Amino acid sequence: MLLMARKALASAHSSKAIRLTTREVHYLSSILVSPPLVSLDLPENWIPYSDPPPLASFETEQKTVVIDGKVIAEEIRTKIISEVGKMKMAVGKVPGLAVVLVGQQRDSQTYVRNKMKACEETGIKSVLAELPEDCSEGHIISVLKEFNEDTSIHGVLVQLPLPQHLDESKILNMVRLEKDVDGFHPLNMGNLAMRGREPLFVSCTPKGCVELLIRAGVEIAGKNAVVIGRSNIVGLPMSLLLQRHDATVSTVHAFTKDPEHITRKADIVIAAAGIPNLVRGSWLKPGAVVIDVGTCPVEDSSCEFGYRLVGDVCYEEALGVASAITPVPGGVGPMTIAMLLCNTLDAAKRIFL
Amino acid sequence: MLLMARKALASAHSSKAIRLTTREVHYLSSILVSPPLVSLDLPENWIPYSDPPPLASFETEQKTVVIDGKVIAEEIRTKIISEVGKMKMAVGKVPGLAVVLVGQQRDSQTYVRNKMKACEETGIKSVLAELPEDCSEGHIISVLKEFNEDTSIHGVLVQLPLPQHLDESKILNMVRLEKDVDGFHPLNMGNLAMRGREPLFVSCTPKGCVELLIRAGVEIAGKNAVVIGRSNIVGLPMSLLLQRHDATVSTVHAFTKDPEHITRKADIVIAAAGIPNLVRGSWLKPGAVVIDVGTCPVEDSSCEFGYRLVGDVCYEEALGVASAITPVPGGVGPMTIAMLLCNTLDAAKRIFL
Repeated sequence: MLLMARKALASAHSSKAIRLTTREVHYLSSILVSPPLVSLDLPENWIPYSDPPPLASFETEQKTVVIDGKVIAEEIRTKIISEVGKMKMAVGKVPGLAVVLVGQQRDSQTYVRNKMKACEETGIKSVLAELPEDCSEGHIISVLKEFNEDTSIHGVLVQLPLPQHLDESKILNMVRLEKDVDGFHPLNMGNLAMRGREPLFVSCTPKGCVELLIRAGVEIAGKNAVVIGRSNIVGLPMSLLLQRHDATVSTVHAFTKDPEHITRKADIVIAAAGIPNLVRGSWLKPGAVVIDVGTCPVEDSSCEFGYRLVGDVCYEEALGVASAITPVPGGVGPMTIAMLLCNTLDAAKRIFL
Repeated sequence: MLLMARKALASAHSSKAIRLTTREVHYLSSILVSPPLVSLDLPENWIPYSDPPPLASFETEQKTVVIDGKVIAEEIRTKIISEVGKMKMAVGKVPGLAVVLVGQQRDSQTYVRNKMKACEETGIKSVLAELPEDCSEGHIISVLKEFNEDTSIHGVLVQLPLPQHLDESKILNMVRLEKDVDGFHPLNMGNLAMRGREPLFVSCTPKGCVELLIRAGVEIAGKNAVVIGRSNIVGLPMSLLLQRHDATVSTVHAFTKDPEHITRKADIVIAAAGIPNLVRGSWLKPGAVVIDVGTCPVEDSSCEFGYRLVGDVCYEEALGVASAITPVPGGVGPMTIAMLLCNTLDAAKRIFL
């Protein structure tokens, strides 16, 4: 995430095409070496076109429901504990997740730690392969092959991003399809995209977002949905998944000329650009449901660790406009990990049940 | 196409949810047993929400350029003839295309005949495997395996639709990735969807549409594009391809509540629903570029063969509103076949050059 911010900042300085507001530059420059909860692709070079109108103009009587991802994720985890227990009783085995971590990037280390801790808490076996920053492609591939063959391992994931010298596509393609619990294999993505086909796994963050919508009682079919961001990890599978649920999906990205305008038409807004506070209250149609995937640590001396996590959506501005919103933290983040556990459980079920 | 119309008609009669205008019912019921030029998925059950406003309200001074797909396709075919000739000179070999046709469906037979004729005219070798309507999955798969292994064959396609008893997904998955000139393999689709990845082939119709846009001088990046229809053959890869070209893409389908409204925001409209005259002049923003993928034969005794081909867009209404439009016939149709030749040539180049 720090890398993200640094890259965004570097490109903001280097490219004449970039126009960031003072506030955004402030946010980008105030980002700390602290890990957020959800891993995102690097942001594109977003070009905000205008400062938003003053808050007063979109204050409404709308009551905003806060969708508590933490509580919902906890419910799901409780169910997983029970299912893992049943599996152990029935076949004497538990699901197994293998994680490949390359290098010492602090964010990645934290993500991996959280994932493994969640496995432990739900009775899922987890194995970590820590490889040095300068490891060869061959080395990673041989580790992946081993996990692919290991019958006690049902899910395999490679923590992203990988160091620059490694070919991410080639490495992700090596994960056995039946163990691709991150859903990043292009065959899983293709099967997610195509009608009449079924991916073996849906990527965890988009799956978590749809789970939140469904559990919050939000109807998706026939609704206008705007997905802000088009990363392979979130934005793309999110758009594909919402379309599978029969939403009318528009994907907004850095080249979009008038993102405010398009977003204002949406009944459902998924913000996954990785830019703190990109989506202002003025971008939202009154009554829209807002799922905020972004999570960026921003300096704040009043907080316990000296920083607080900020989403892609101006939370305070969205309150009173949106009909429902996920908070940051405590919204999408916990769901991503819960969905990883679900996918790992599903992978094991396909073998045992 | 007849099957399409019959199914649409059947569902229009059977489902209470369907509301077709008299004009649409007329069009659907007047469809003849005559093949159109471009093969589309079966249409979804579109529900038009209101009759369009009278024509007068959107007459403008806009000059509409007609994008001549026939001429552009001819240019491309001339280039292919030259490249195939060069290949023959250089390595003594030509590209080879194998087509698998199951059953006696007249539309399919015509499509296949047109494809093979185009191969012949450009010096590409073509081979046809005609299988009986009731052939087994194993039979098709053994034929595909043979073509997959045949070094004189560089492209393999299965003419769709297949008879109901066959598993289309399973059969399409059997086409060797390096020979998947239709681009329908989910791995090609996934690689088309994902940033930083390259599909080996892009499906012919979407590729032809983008080629038309580019050759007509239409800038795609940053433009609002609406794709009407989400079939695996056209709509889906079209949306993915336009997004790859950095358009802001919205995909409109049968569940879309207000397709007129969304379409009216588009700088580029790709109509690929398979419903004659679905897109009215009132759906278009003045100056929009319109690519009409639909092509449906409609009874017309004044025409040579007793029918004429009608697109998804009301052509006469679009004239004077759109800045550019493809006619039906003579727009997208010829480009689809030209792109199939291109893909087959590319497949051979990967082997020989």
